[in-house]
Amino acid sequence: MVLLKSEGLNVAVVGVTGAVGTRMVQMLEGSPLPVKSLLPLASARSAGKSITFGEKSWTIEEAKPESFEHIDIALFSAGGSVSKQLAPEAAKRGAIVVDNTSAFRMDPQVPLVVPEVNEKALAQHHGIIANPNCSTIQMVAALEPIRQAYGLNRIIVSTYQAVSGAGAKAIAELEEQSRQVLDGKKPEAAIMPVKGDKKHFQMAFNAIPQIDLFQPNDYTFEEMKMINETKKIMDDQEIKVSATCVRVPVSISHGESVYIEIDQTDVSASDLKKLLADAPGVILQDDPAHQIYPMPASASGKKEVFVGRIRRDPDVSNGFHLWIVSDNLLKGAAWNSVQIAERLLKLGLVKF
Amino acid sequence: MVLLKSEGLNVAVVGVTGAVGTRMVQMLEGSPLPVKSLLPLASARSAGKSITFGEKSWTIEEAKPESFEHIDIALFSAGGSVSKQLAPEAAKRGAIVVDNTSAFRMDPQVPLVVPEVNEKALAQHHGIIANPNCSTIQMVAALEPIRQAYGLNRIIVSTYQAVSGAGAKAIAELEEQSRQVLDGKKPEAAIMPVKGDKKHFQMAFNAIPQIDLFQPNDYTFEEMKMINETKKIMDDQEIKVSATCVRVPVSISHGESVYIEIDQTDVSASDLKKLLADAPGVILQDDPAHQIYPMPASASGKKEVFVGRIRRDPDVSNGFHLWIVSDNLLKGAAWNSVQIAERLLKLGLVKF
Repeated sequence: MVLLKSEGLNVAVVGVTGAVGTRMVQMLEGSPLPVKSLLPLASARSAGKSITFGEKSWTIEEAKPESFEHIDIALFSAGGSVSKQLAPEAAKRGAIVVDNTSAFRMDPQVPLVVPEVNEKALAQHHGIIANPNCSTIQMVAALEPIRQAYGLNRIIVSTYQAVSGAGAKAIAELEEQSRQVLDGKKPEAAIMPVKGDKKHFQMAFNAIPQIDLFQPNDYTFEEMKMINETKKIMDDQEIKVSATCVRVPVSISHGESVYIEIDQTDVSASDLKKLLADAPGVILQDDPAHQIYPMPASASGKKEVFVGRIRRDPDVSNGFHLWIVSDNLLKGAAWNSVQIAERLLKLGLVKF
Repeated sequence: MVLLKSEGLNVAVVGVTGAVGTRMVQMLEGSPLPVKSLLPLASARSAGKSITFGEKSWTIEEAKPESFEHIDIALFSAGGSVSKQLAPEAAKRGAIVVDNTSAFRMDPQVPLVVPEVNEKALAQHHGIIANPNCSTIQMVAALEPIRQAYGLNRIIVSTYQAVSGAGAKAIAELEEQSRQVLDGKKPEAAIMPVKGDKKHFQMAFNAIPQIDLFQPNDYTFEEMKMINETKKIMDDQEIKVSATCVRVPVSISHGESVYIEIDQTDVSASDLKKLLADAPGVILQDDPAHQIYPMPASASGKKEVFVGRIRRDPDVSNGFHLWIVSDNLLKGAAWNSVQIAERLLKLGLVKF
């Protein structure tokens, strides 16, 4: 149900029943955005069900091009093919799309935005704004203050990614497999590492060095997303970025072991800590003497990016390690999308 | 029970009831070493129990200095304090000690040996030979052929370490916590990340960036072991090594995301693959098109080091990624110790 414009925004959420979609609604619920109406969209299968938002019930409709008439902001998280088909339809009808899939991220016409890093890119939008990949968002949010202060010439990242990045069914598979292994049974694998790939492997009590499909250069698509998106968001093609992405048996929140080389050589780990203690959207958790460091179990359900284990390479004066953890469904997806919507309003880029 | 010398070796295993000790006996069982008698040693608590080896039953005795009279080879894996106390006593009585703890690893008088890398260092022993840290062993075994062929100037490693590195009780805790989380209960933590440290955290469905105690430089002892032991084993203090060690909810086998810079710039990933396909103790599992790569679940119970995901950094011509997995209780501990014993015999350094 879409109300006529008067004193608030008409917001659509596409893929509202998914792991990210449900959290987009939660994030809107906690946001100061003046949402007048919510249009929950999904596949035909879920149409007719309803969700609660702002103490009202809203009926889920099947997502179609016409759904976006009178919509101001459409948050998409229903897979790349849905976005490719419907995001241009929504934009054509005047909605601003914030798309959480990889469909438009590398399109030069589409801003790829992490508000703490490149909010200014929002002004260049042509109806579609892309939400970066989850593992990229938390990394650039933590590294941008360092880049601004000391220059950044190199990033080498190894990820410890939660299964929820592959959707709610992947969480269910991890749980089911965990029970099977604990009961001494052979675990059944049908989803991980990639639902659409040929082979599936046990995820419970295992680590799988494949997230998304392999590319011709033997990097996975997830790794190439981290490499290419980081350069686009930071608007610097000269930064050397390389990545290894690994799935671990964690339900929610990605960990990242990030190695950087900064331009300056006279910077200490405590300089970096001071910088990150004041960085927007970042919480410093770095006190080894008291065993304070970020972990998925403590980051889940929170909107911030948590950073710790900051220390200098013993042999390289401009090389530093950081351990970065964030909820992949929130800052990595739903919260970053709602945060973009909030910034659009603040910057006067969406009106009602 | 120790037999007099005649046609075989008298071998003692200290810490025979532990996760590594039990596997030392298994590895001896499968070894061509001519073991004439096995002396299973443990704490007073286990004395009187018996184990089976070579189709005979051997009674566990309490480890004491006198235990090592007539012992040719003593494999130690009962913790650093036991080794500090008893390894010199064993050596004094003529046994060659292969010690799996960190007690003597950095002692300049003690060879630190991975047979595939520095077998020749065995000749310098003074009664004690140190078995390196599990995470170090698998890394240097995979990197040494590359270092020999192309030179190695830099290593940056992020580990994905199994809980069995913290002993059999840590595996039990992971399993119990996993059940608690799956049943919606609050998990109880008493062991991980470090039994002797102040705080304990949930390990199930989590990743903990602390293995062993923090050092004054904010690296953990595990990370410093990887840094210092790698340089000692490779006998090259010039190699730049830095490490981040993370515990993941896996029972057995460590994963490692290893980034290296070699001396030469005209080497391809396929050159490295060819080299490792023929390397001793290494199995190349690197065929992304067929989703072939190493994983803890497939490496566990095997003696080799598995390497895959080899690829060049898109921006750095001498930079490469490798994903290295091995059973931390076998090549990382029990098998490397027994393998050292086999080499001692082959090199004529132990006689009977």
